[in-house]
Amino acid sequence: MTRYEALAAEIAESIRSGVLRPGDRLPSVRQARASRGVSPSTVFQAYYLLEAQGLVRARERSGYYVADGVRPLPPEPEAASQPDDDALPLDVSERVFEILESTMVRDVVPLGSAFPSPLLFPLARLGRSMAASVQKLDPWSTVDDLTPGNARLRRQIALRYLADGMQVAPDEIVITNGALEALNLCLASVTRPGDAVLIESPTFYAALQALERLGLEAIEVPTHPREGMALDALERAILRHRPKACWLMTNFQNPLGSLMSDERKKALVELLARHGIPLIEDDVYGELYFGDKRPLPAKAWDAEGLVMHCGSFSKCLAPGWRIGWAAPGRFTRAVARAKLTTTLGASAPTQNALAAYLEQGGFDKHLRRLRRTLAEQQTRLVQAIGEYFPAGTRATRPAGGYFLWVELPAGVDALELHRQALAAGISVAPGPIFSAQRGFTNCLRLNYGHPWDERSAQAVATLGRLAGR
Amino acid sequence: MTRYEALAAEIAESIRSGVLRPGDRLPSVRQARASRGVSPSTVFQAYYLLEAQGLVRARERSGYYVADGVRPLPPEPEAASQPDDDALPLDVSERVFEILESTMVRDVVPLGSAFPSPLLFPLARLGRSMAASVQKLDPWSTVDDLTPGNARLRRQIALRYLADGMQVAPDEIVITNGALEALNLCLASVTRPGDAVLIESPTFYAALQALERLGLEAIEVPTHPREGMALDALERAILRHRPKACWLMTNFQNPLGSLMSDERKKALVELLARHGIPLIEDDVYGELYFGDKRPLPAKAWDAEGLVMHCGSFSKCLAPGWRIGWAAPGRFTRAVARAKLTTTLGASAPTQNALAAYLEQGGFDKHLRRLRRTLAEQQTRLVQAIGEYFPAGTRATRPAGGYFLWVELPAGVDALELHRQALAAGISVAPGPIFSAQRGFTNCLRLNYGHPWDERSAQAVATLGRLAGR
Repeated sequence: MTRYEALAAEIAESIRSGVLRPGDRLPSVRQARASRGVSPSTVFQAYYLLEAQGLVRARERSGYYVADGVRPLPPEPEAASQPDDDALPLDVSERVFEILESTMVRDVVPLGSAFPSPLLFPLARLGRSMAASVQKLDPWSTVDDLTPGNARLRRQIALRYLADGMQVAPDEIVITNGALEALNLCLASVTRPGDAVLIESPTFYAALQALERLGLEAIEVPTHPREGMALDALERAILRHRPKACWLMTNFQNPLGSLMSDERKKALVELLARHGIPLIEDDVYGELYFGDKRPLPAKAWDAEGLVMHCGSFSKCLAPGWRIGWAAPGRFTRAVARAKLTTTLGASAPTQNALAAYLEQGGFDKHLRRLRRTLAEQQTRLVQAIGEYFPAGTRATRPAGGYFLWVELPAGVDALELHRQALAAGISVAPGPIFSAQRGFTNCLRLNYGHPWDERSAQAVATLGRLAGR
Repeated sequence: MTRYEALAAEIAESIRSGVLRPGDRLPSVRQARASRGVSPSTVFQAYYLLEAQGLVRARERSGYYVADGVRPLPPEPEAASQPDDDALPLDVSERVFEILESTMVRDVVPLGSAFPSPLLFPLARLGRSMAASVQKLDPWSTVDDLTPGNARLRRQIALRYLADGMQVAPDEIVITNGALEALNLCLASVTRPGDAVLIESPTFYAALQALERLGLEAIEVPTHPREGMALDALERAILRHRPKACWLMTNFQNPLGSLMSDERKKALVELLARHGIPLIEDDVYGELYFGDKRPLPAKAWDAEGLVMHCGSFSKCLAPGWRIGWAAPGRFTRAVARAKLTTTLGASAPTQNALAAYLEQGGFDKHLRRLRRTLAEQQTRLVQAIGEYFPAGTRATRPAGGYFLWVELPAGVDALELHRQALAAGISVAPGPIFSAQRGFTNCLRLNYGHPWDERSAQAVATLGRLAGR
């Protein structure tokens, strides 16, 4: 956890416990600085995050106050997971599909969805970019924009890296059909069937499915719900299993929402480099931060070309356009060739339209609005969980993204809750689909990427009632 | 070979050998019917094909005449290939890439290209469809059009099957990022590493790369340059190797241009069904026929759901849009799930735009013009080969597609020719990249999918001179 997140979490905990109440004034920057020994910038970042989450409000020339109507928040989970430390072959994909497909009914309250609401994105503006760009499309782009992809789009992506202080050359960027393809290509490029791969516990189920498809074994590494993968446990797993790759999410991990601090990212990259292990970094939520700047990916500390950074526009700008990318370091040629033999390229008019949109500007303005919306929706969901879920429930309050992780009291069966919720018209993502070991039996991933309304509140109340039985 | 193709080949051979000369009248339908015992429809189809190839011209109320300026054509290759009959692991992908990448220089004469000229396609009209459809795109299509894909587009594809007399339900159709993804997903869905797979000899190099990537072994089956895979050899290979799948092209095979007759397709499907072997049917050139109707895919005879038919719009309508599909019979769910774990879906605005274009009509009109153009360009290329290539050269005259296959006199080294041609600004696709056994050392695949001009003629003359050394 970074300093500002720690400060924000501490204040949120005071609000949760009732020490701070609606209308109370937060310590001034000077006070906080003196009492906690942190820099003014840390205090500002913490307050900015709390404001984005809807917990505090700034009053002009006066300071920050606990927002009206803030209800007690549930506590955050505190303990890292404790998976079995064997390397295991996988047999979960069918089960994951059964659960995912069962939730794809229309008209359920989509708390179990993997996607944010498409209404949060500038589809009209994107449509105009596409309409304009497709009519002046160079016919040869249909060939030239095949892998590694449209040159203008790769330059725009390189410029975004540069704005974050990173040097990633356009030649290192391979455009893909969404980040999922990038991740799969990266994994296939550095492993062979039977190899062991390090993953988080819990992890994004698509990582489990990718490992299973490629005949790989999973080593689940203890992961903290706020801080991400535990590096001491990671090192032990490396020494024991000699894995061929590590796949994780440094920023707003799916499903936990955890965010690794810069220090931990740096230590992660150095640890893996010492053992020559490639890192497949899934960073599709990095742009959805609620603080004041984009958290860097681990790739920012990569000196060896071992970090394969995977990004996407699907979660932050253009859902359904299926444009992502990999920046795979020393594996760039292998990844590009793997793409050439499997899907050849991404849609040329779609790539051109996205390049045109990014060149015009407006992406950052959209992002600011999107982040504010998601942060507010998170607070609504967390507050509703605090209000309706049984005592003993814990929930993460991620500093970005659109998922949070709920730990229900021990004994609550998340799979049974998933079935009952579905019968009541509500989807949830039950914990066991995020683990090769099928753990997390009392956990849920909930989605706050959809507009909050009365139906959402009722759904959380229903879930709480079902969980309390 | 179908009856009409046999008749057309016979007449083309008479033109080649000089028995029939420019201005000579072909037998009337009545004469041909009487002398050869074929139906009037067969005669008309044969003359129609010869006309499309530019070898004959119809004069109104008079009949068909050998076209002016027709030069002697090179003979067609006659013998099926004779590959080694072992099952072999593959190690060709790197080599294939080196050769393909070397030809991707700009400004070479693209006789070695895998793509037709983008100028042959209705890009402006497609662009208008996209511009109109994207601006009224349903936001939820960004989720709903994920795999199996846009419902309107799948219905349009099902309608095209229906027009050819085939019942393929929209539910069986999985939209993919081009046919290449469809083929790869189908292959992965029915094999495990170490399995043996039947392929043609020579075969499309992407099939070799797909097998190599999945750790499969290749059984190369003798294939006739006009008639396609030899079914007796196929049966022997099945009995010997117990393969898990067969991957081939029934219509205008890449690289030969061969076309299996309906009888042979039916026999193929029945043979594979007797042994329970899935057929992965690559049919991306089926719409590019020069005869009077679309040759059916083998899937038309599939009673068991074992034929996985893969098609695409990339070669016949919308290059670079990366929209293809699989109709994988009993493997549909497995293919859809494999896609969900690797690329999730195809670009939603691209799918919608293509559906809108197909609903408007105009595709068939475009196709008629495209087929005429390709047939004429084939004749130009074949005639230039006859004029400039060394004696003893043979070339196929496919009844569709945009590739032909050249057998140079024994002793000509196609890889060396490829290097020398490239130095002279001409790309060719040398025979050895189409075989796991690296055979076909004196063969080339040439592309006639680009407008024929003086530069093309000079390139063929240069190639002939280099080959003659």
